[in-house]
Amino acid sequence: MTTPYQLTYQLYYWPNLQGRGEFVRLALEEAGVAYEDVARQKKGMPALQGSLDFDEVDHPAFAPPVLRAGELLIGQTANILLFLGARHGLAPRAEAGRLWANQLQLTIADIVNEAHDTHHPLSTNLYYEDQQKAANVRAQDFVAERIPKFLGYFEQVLANNRGRGAYAVGSRLSYVDLSLFQLMAGLRYAFPNAMARQEHGWPRLVALHDAVAARPRIAAYLASKRRIPFNEDGIFRRYPELDG
Amino acid sequence: MTTPYQLTYQLYYWPNLQGRGEFVRLALEEAGVAYEDVARQKKGMPALQGSLDFDEVDHPAFAPPVLRAGELLIGQTANILLFLGARHGLAPRAEAGRLWANQLQLTIADIVNEAHDTHHPLSTNLYYEDQQKAANVRAQDFVAERIPKFLGYFEQVLANNRGRGAYAVGSRLSYVDLSLFQLMAGLRYAFPNAMARQEHGWPRLVALHDAVAARPRIAAYLASKRRIPFNEDGIFRRYPELDG
Repeated sequence: MTTPYQLTYQLYYWPNLQGRGEFVRLALEEAGVAYEDVARQKKGMPALQGSLDFDEVDHPAFAPPVLRAGELLIGQTANILLFLGARHGLAPRAEAGRLWANQLQLTIADIVNEAHDTHHPLSTNLYYEDQQKAANVRAQDFVAERIPKFLGYFEQVLANNRGRGAYAVGSRLSYVDLSLFQLMAGLRYAFPNAMARQEHGWPRLVALHDAVAARPRIAAYLASKRRIPFNEDGIFRRYPELDG
Repeated sequence: MTTPYQLTYQLYYWPNLQGRGEFVRLALEEAGVAYEDVARQKKGMPALQGSLDFDEVDHPAFAPPVLRAGELLIGQTANILLFLGARHGLAPRAEAGRLWANQLQLTIADIVNEAHDTHHPLSTNLYYEDQQKAANVRAQDFVAERIPKFLGYFEQVLANNRGRGAYAVGSRLSYVDLSLFQLMAGLRYAFPNAMARQEHGWPRLVALHDAVAARPRIAAYLASKRRIPFNEDGIFRRYPELDG
């Protein structure tokens, strides 16, 4: 039962895909807080649309995910995580660590954008099938150049962290670790061949993925129906022709 | 003269283009603080490279811009602005306003990424000339669909703000206003025809652009040699064939 003292968050995100909302879901699950995944419930889509509508709210977001926390309505994935990280001990308290976590999260957002653009290089308003040739070129570059550049960077971040515990930031789990788990899982789903060939080069990222997946709350979440399976409506899509 | 009590920032960014560094430069200029634009000075390029090198610093950035503030080395444009906004009164102090400013800045970052991809839709490792057909398709979509969607959103943000002064957030100038100025200036440079046709629909954005340009410190900056002219090495590039 929710008491007035225990805030229940509302997450507004597309109901049938992981997408950018999944980075928020993982943080909420690890924090062990109550939340409603609004659009996945009956009649939830109007509420999602309302979070984007200037007639409905003062500060609508440009796009989901959006998190409602009492009076606050917060958009942009990294911004939501900045908020949740501070509230639920999923980020360092000190300024330097907080900024470093945010910086890493924004770098994860960059590769997530690029992963999306492998299947939609020309326009989000065109079907994949109508931009497949361009997608082939972009995906080939992504697999050969961008995945190694980004994952090589994150591997070095893990190697350089002098804190205990093999986390990305300091000596405690942060939302950055949860997001790196999701990034690895997503890339493995979308590009299984490319990842199988390359991921031996990033042993710390592989170990972090496994450690996050084994955390009790995350393991329970991944085994539940709350975790939407990867699919071809999300960011990470398995199109074999793009997996060099 | 810099006293020990007055921190001089170092900005690490490419010396010959505005790029994402320009959003940081505008904040530093408006704040009226001392900063070195390191790579624009003699022998500055090794320092820029050092800010990205795990052998040189503990927390290298994936890419410029990077800001050094004493012991802190901060990467990712929106993250640097989050820091500068709090330090120099360029963002609200209260959590709700701070998060809203960050959310808007991240939405600006999204359209800036899309503006970049109009000339590099397939790969940053290929020349523009080698992806020009794809660039034509992407730019056409950007001009017809994405510019109106994003700028229509920001116009509504301005219209919905009940604060005085026609700013994006509350009743005082924030780094979001400076970034919206730069966004408008960049889009006008890259897509003069498309913007001339459409911008009457966004009168508040046009007025904000002019108000920012007229602020004494910004006006002085724009008239100085510190402001690098727009050019075809930056994010906003004038390729007439992409300007529908």
